[in-house]
Amino acid sequence: MTKTIFEKIIARDLPAEILYEDEDIICIRDKFPKAPVHILLITKKVIPSIHDLKPEEYPLLGKIITKAQEIATQEGVSDNYRLMTNRGPKAGQTIYHLHFHLMAGI
Amino acid sequence: MTKTIFEKIIARDLPAEILYEDEDIICIRDKFPKAPVHILLITKKVIPSIHDLKPEEYPLLGKIITKAQEIATQEGVSDNYRLMTNRGPKAGQTIYHLHFHLMAGI
Repeated sequence: MTKTIFEKIIARDLPAEILYEDEDIICIRDKFPKAPVHILLITKKVIPSIHDLKPEEYPLLGKIITKAQEIATQEGVSDNYRLMTNRGPKAGQTIYHLHFHLMAGI
Repeated sequence: MTKTIFEKIIARDLPAEILYEDEDIICIRDKFPKAPVHILLITKKVIPSIHDLKPEEYPLLGKIITKAQEIATQEGVSDNYRLMTNRGPKAGQTIYHLHFHLMAGI
């Protein structure tokens, strides 16, 4: 099966500006930012979208929220930011590997 | 202290189309929808925003995701939807009581 772009980044087969990484999640700067601050918070496990997330995987959500709060603070945008995830092509999802957009300065 | 609009809805002091309610969360149709389907998933506890959510409150996130998946299915938009939360006025937050927007058909 073809790897997702995020799997390739995790495997270091593709470059990315990695802001944080642990065994469960990786956070990178979006290569094509749609806002002055545009970070992606990604589960390492390949879950296609938020609609496919199962209760036993919910601890990953907590990790993502904790890290979103920390990164927003580090980036100096903790007072105003958006956290968003898209499910399906018509909602703007382009990579079928669960990720959240942290966007600020829109 | 002044109640938030959502507290007033929970107390039935203001009307709303309630799609779901339990002891922890309430889901309503947005009164001023910005998409053909626009649902708000709200914590009953008054947490000002996602940035203020503490680890001990993360189970609320799981409840919101579960319900978002269910409501997206009920509304016939499970293939394409966006889940979003805004922190701060410049990110579009207007009610300082944690809520997620489920939007589809944009």
